[in-house]
Amino acid sequence: MHFGSDNCAPVHSRVMDALMRANQGYATSYGDDTIMDRVRARFREVFEAPEAAVYLVGTGGAANALALATYVQPWQAIYCHRDAHMETDECGGLAFYSGGATLALVDGSQGKLAADALASAISATPQGDVHAVQRGAVSITNASEAGTVYSCDEVAAISAIAKRHKLPLHMDGARFANALVTLGCTPAQLSWKSGVDVLSFGGTKNGLMGVEAVVMFDPALAWEFELRRKRGGHLFSKHRYFSAQMEAYLTNDLWLNTAHTANAMATRLSAGLSSTPGASINYPTQANIVFATLSRARHRRAMQAGAVYFLMPMDSSLEGPDDEMLAARLVCSWCTTEAEVDQFLQLLRA
Amino acid sequence: MHFGSDNCAPVHSRVMDALMRANQGYATSYGDDTIMDRVRARFREVFEAPEAAVYLVGTGGAANALALATYVQPWQAIYCHRDAHMETDECGGLAFYSGGATLALVDGSQGKLAADALASAISATPQGDVHAVQRGAVSITNASEAGTVYSCDEVAAISAIAKRHKLPLHMDGARFANALVTLGCTPAQLSWKSGVDVLSFGGTKNGLMGVEAVVMFDPALAWEFELRRKRGGHLFSKHRYFSAQMEAYLTNDLWLNTAHTANAMATRLSAGLSSTPGASINYPTQANIVFATLSRARHRRAMQAGAVYFLMPMDSSLEGPDDEMLAARLVCSWCTTEAEVDQFLQLLRA
Amino acid sequence: MHFGSDNCAPVHSRVMDALMRANQGYATSYGDDTIMDRVRARFREVFEAPEAAVYLVGTGGAANALALATYVQPWQAIYCHRDAHMETDECGGLAFYSGGATLALVDGSQGKLAADALASAISATPQGDVHAVQRGAVSITNASEAGTVYSCDEVAAISAIAKRHKLPLHMDGARFANALVTLGCTPAQLSWKSGVDVLSFGGTKNGLMGVEAVVMFDPALAWEFELRRKRGGHLFSKHRYFSAQMEAYLTNDLWLNTAHTANAMATRLSAGLSSTPGASINYPTQANIVFATLSRARHRRAMQAGAVYFLMPMDSSLEGPDDEMLAARLVCSWCTTEAEVDQFLQLLRA
Amino acid sequence: MHFGSDNCAPVHSRVMDALMRANQGYATSYGDDTIMDRVRARFREVFEAPEAAVYLVGTGGAANALALATYVQPWQAIYCHRDAHMETDECGGLAFYSGGATLALVDGSQGKLAADALASAISATPQGDVHAVQRGAVSITNASEAGTVYSCDEVAAISAIAKRHKLPLHMDGARFANALVTLGCTPAQLSWKSGVDVLSFGGTKNGLMGVEAVVMFDPALAWEFELRRKRGGHLFSKHRYFSAQMEAYLTNDLWLNTAHTANAMATRLSAGLSSTPGASINYPTQANIVFATLSRARHRRAMQAGAVYFLMPMDSSLEGPDDEMLAARLVCSWCTTEAEVDQFLQLLRA
Repeated sequence: MHFGSDNCAPVHSRVMDALMRANQGYATSYGDDTIMDRVRARFREVFEAPEAAVYLVGTGGAANALALATYVQPWQAIYCHRDAHMETDECGGLAFYSGGATLALVDGSQGKLAADALASAISATPQGDVHAVQRGAVSITNASEAGTVYSCDEVAAISAIAKRHKLPLHMDGARFANALVTLGCTPAQLSWKSGVDVLSFGGTKNGLMGVEAVVMFDPALAWEFELRRKRGGHLFSKHRYFSAQMEAYLTNDLWLNTAHTANAMATRLSAGLSSTPGASINYPTQANIVFATLSRARHRRAMQAGAVYFLMPMDSSLEGPDDEMLAARLVCSWCTTEAEVDQFLQLLRA
Repeated sequence: MHFGSDNCAPVHSRVMDALMRANQGYATSYGDDTIMDRVRARFREVFEAPEAAVYLVGTGGAANALALATYVQPWQAIYCHRDAHMETDECGGLAFYSGGATLALVDGSQGKLAADALASAISATPQGDVHAVQRGAVSITNASEAGTVYSCDEVAAISAIAKRHKLPLHMDGARFANALVTLGCTPAQLSWKSGVDVLSFGGTKNGLMGVEAVVMFDPALAWEFELRRKRGGHLFSKHRYFSAQMEAYLTNDLWLNTAHTANAMATRLSAGLSSTPGASINYPTQANIVFATLSRARHRRAMQAGAVYFLMPMDSSLEGPDDEMLAARLVCSWCTTEAEVDQFLQLLRA
Repeated sequence: MHFGSDNCAPVHSRVMDALMRANQGYATSYGDDTIMDRVRARFREVFEAPEAAVYLVGTGGAANALALATYVQPWQAIYCHRDAHMETDECGGLAFYSGGATLALVDGSQGKLAADALASAISATPQGDVHAVQRGAVSITNASEAGTVYSCDEVAAISAIAKRHKLPLHMDGARFANALVTLGCTPAQLSWKSGVDVLSFGGTKNGLMGVEAVVMFDPALAWEFELRRKRGGHLFSKHRYFSAQMEAYLTNDLWLNTAHTANAMATRLSAGLSSTPGASINYPTQANIVFATLSRARHRRAMQAGAVYFLMPMDSSLEGPDDEMLAARLVCSWCTTEAEVDQFLQLLRA
Repeated sequence: MHFGSDNCAPVHSRVMDALMRANQGYATSYGDDTIMDRVRARFREVFEAPEAAVYLVGTGGAANALALATYVQPWQAIYCHRDAHMETDECGGLAFYSGGATLALVDGSQGKLAADALASAISATPQGDVHAVQRGAVSITNASEAGTVYSCDEVAAISAIAKRHKLPLHMDGARFANALVTLGCTPAQLSWKSGVDVLSFGGTKNGLMGVEAVVMFDPALAWEFELRRKRGGHLFSKHRYFSAQMEAYLTNDLWLNTAHTANAMATRLSAGLSSTPGASINYPTQANIVFATLSRARHRRAMQAGAVYFLMPMDSSLEGPDDEMLAARLVCSWCTTEAEVDQFLQLLRA
């Protein structure tokens, strides 16, 4: 019963197999391995984007920071949701990588940037006024931190606003696969066809050991990205092991299947909680994360029985009145089982 | 016959086994895994440094940049050898991570910082003059880029100069194991007992998939290092796979054995070249790298027969007069075999 | 009738005289002039702070950025009001000088940081969580951008919260003199006795040509400040002309007299507007700035008659319905006259 | 007898008069003053460059750092002379403003970059190799730190090398006027007609209070420069006083006359020293700086009699053997008199 994070899950066996297969003899280092050639081709195929530049890095923080730093100037603002990972969980990495760019925090319900709030925020940034931080880029997270999903139309609406102001659109897709399987659209539809210029494409949370891709649909800034990646210490010498993970991920729909499982388990969990008296669901469950509110007594019982997950806010305590209602973040992963979910639900209902 | 780089070698099978073993069930992410507890303890034991702070990152560039950025201010100089990796091969990563610190390049034969040149360079940096970049830290590479090794006495002599000016001493130990097995001393002797304050401890070039450690013998700046690592995108979520690699490395002397093999192969290669008419060795072969000079005709023959290595400088060409002498960098790794070495020597002698 | 900004006013004649007097023969450059010795002594006397470090720079933006960058780390947050000058008018200079520190925007009515909102914001910053930006410093502006003034008690309340979290308190005192004459307290009371650690002490808006001081009540970080100032290109070679301005400013209460005039004119203007039908005052007028709301027709009439001032927000237009109410920012300076104020009021009442 | 620095000289009376004249009534702030319009027009006329972008800042360090940061990327190298002001005297300001660009130090006799050494240095920077710092820009100082002057042909030769590699050429013209009057060419000839792309045009050392211009002959990057200037805290609010100084400077050839005087005094001093037994001149005297070698006994006598100047290196001491030869840097300014020079020479000859 581990719902702490999809980061706590192990690596999929097909990925481990791929690492083993890659571990033969010598290979050219620093991204010039032949597996990477195949990975690049596969990305272009999957995304129907024959010109796209594709790079691998080891963490989502690096993917976001390197991607956006390539698209903004130090004196510009990146419009993102108030709860975006880059605001709350990357220790200011964006400011570091960009040389001081600002995150302009925008509101929006259910963890998603509201289009009108975005439009207002951009308009509120003075245009051509040397005293003010300038308009830089827009970033959205899909699936969001709240476990909700932007539809292609919603992405396109955000993109239309960005484009009206000539701003590039970045998508933090640490859980891109989870969003995709929910929507049932194509990768191209959820990205460049909806106006996404650069995508952080997650793998680690969805079965890999530690690889994310950055996909730039227009390769104009590719060389700059490469220099930023190297300079940031994110160009791995034994790169073939990054490539091998990503190749396995994109082979035989592994990435979609693992995301499908994680989402299905979250749906099962959410449905079970909905029908549990005294429990409520905080956001629509559209990906692999469930936010639910339960009494402290129930949290205590569950955790004492071995369930692992976070209360929200994170400094909430199991100490206190039994009947106080506390929110929980419950994350399912590719290896979550129906048995785990059902055991957890049973515990709560006991 | 692959002497291109120890980065091109595969991962040792015991490391792959460790990754497999680590791949069971859920684990706490972001460095709080239980394997890391054992790795930390093991480092402290190996280095006889019970207080040392120990962190893992994925690349040598990250290790060097994060380590030194923690010890210097943006307006300070880091004294290092003119051919140091951080000067020639990290795309200015030190300046990036430190917020603009300067590399003050110091001369020295055989790839090693000359103590007197270091003393002169430090003295030449005006003290207390607000117009000038200030004195910051000293960094040496052991084994060096030239394949030579600083003895403990030589490290202590460098350290004495640094300490006289109250400057911390960093050691880039991407090939620390190679230096250690050459010297036959203890890790403590080659590091803190000789005055090293912070060590980049290599693993990747010596059999790991992609893990380096940063060891801070005085843990005073540990928290700052953690924040810098996170902010730089170098804190891996599925950290257990970093820990597992490093644990395998430090178990049953794997790291010393792999380094021993690499060094022995370089010694064999160097000896063979020394006795090859028309070939000359450029630096004493003290670790796993051999620099040798041969005629272009021989390089051409070797490469056409499948030998892989770099000419130095890297833009040297196989096109040109046959009898022009060109330098080569030949790197041995933990998986280089006697057969490979001998085949290469035979080729050259043919 | 120029109420555009106190930056548009000329230099006081006693300051020009001082510049003339300073313009004799040779003088040591880069801050080692003898006038600066007197200025430093005078500051220490005026602030009853015999240990204070005192430095001069040319702009308020430089004073704020250099002062705060000296007190925070790149991964830290500076808590300031949502409308603080450093957020709205310095083009991200704080992020630049600090290497990426974040402004954490806090609410508060009348342009002043609310103590409880500050306490909440600090508490909301996770403590010791490596994923989050860390707590860094608190900054308040006195007099504020809204023309209001923090009392010594209010400053002390803010400081108490900062100190509880071991955070330094910075005061942006671009209009420190205006606040001081309103409160009638001593400079020490409004600064270090109320818990201010470092002060940007304005001069330019109050009769100088272009000089601000940074006063660090604890000189521990003085040398770091000097290096940051030099590195930022803000150490002026012919520094005696900075010193001379500041000396004149602090002589015979010039600074208090000019601020007194500016405040008195604002009070007269505010009172006049209050008694003007159809006009309303938006904030209590406590310094030299008046925010008032009038119909577009009246703004049009005033501006056509030569009055100069800004509508707020700045992109408001004189085009539009006559009776729409629009806010104006009206700034008085040391050279504003009663005649100007009265002429303006007459215009509006016509 | 003050030969310490041209920074120690006072402000020319015509400049003070201009400041007085500018000190009338209100003026638009932040560079939108009407005097600046005239200054801009005058620069374009003087430089025969009707499209040039022209900006004023307060220090030479700011001019250099802002100018070059606008033309290079953080991962690029700026090729400059080993003794360039930006290397020795700006506390790493270039690295700060550029986000970490590197100064690649190039040799050259008499304080001037040698064309062949520059060509070698550029070629030695690997092209298109992601591991290495990239080629960025070339910067030369005219007149140089050694008091020598690049002819237009020499500038053009440097520029040809830069252009061959598509690198912009920056000229640090803190003493541009001194170089110009020596050469007798036009400002256009010594700048854009010889291939200079961006010029730091000095004023402070040549009679102003503290103003330098940055002239970008191609205005494409003008807006970026404006943002960098603002962000760096270098956009002065009461800008009219910058404009007024610069207008006076460019009126009736004041700038050329003051430079002519300074140069003539240096020539007189140099000639006098040449004919003084036991004295020798270290570099050709081509601007307003003389480097000469004299015995310690003579230095002691001169300084005890009130002469002010620096020994080189700066930590040289008057303590020591009488007959040891020590170098001196002697700087003349617009206010140096023949009497001062002759008195000094007499002292040495006594």
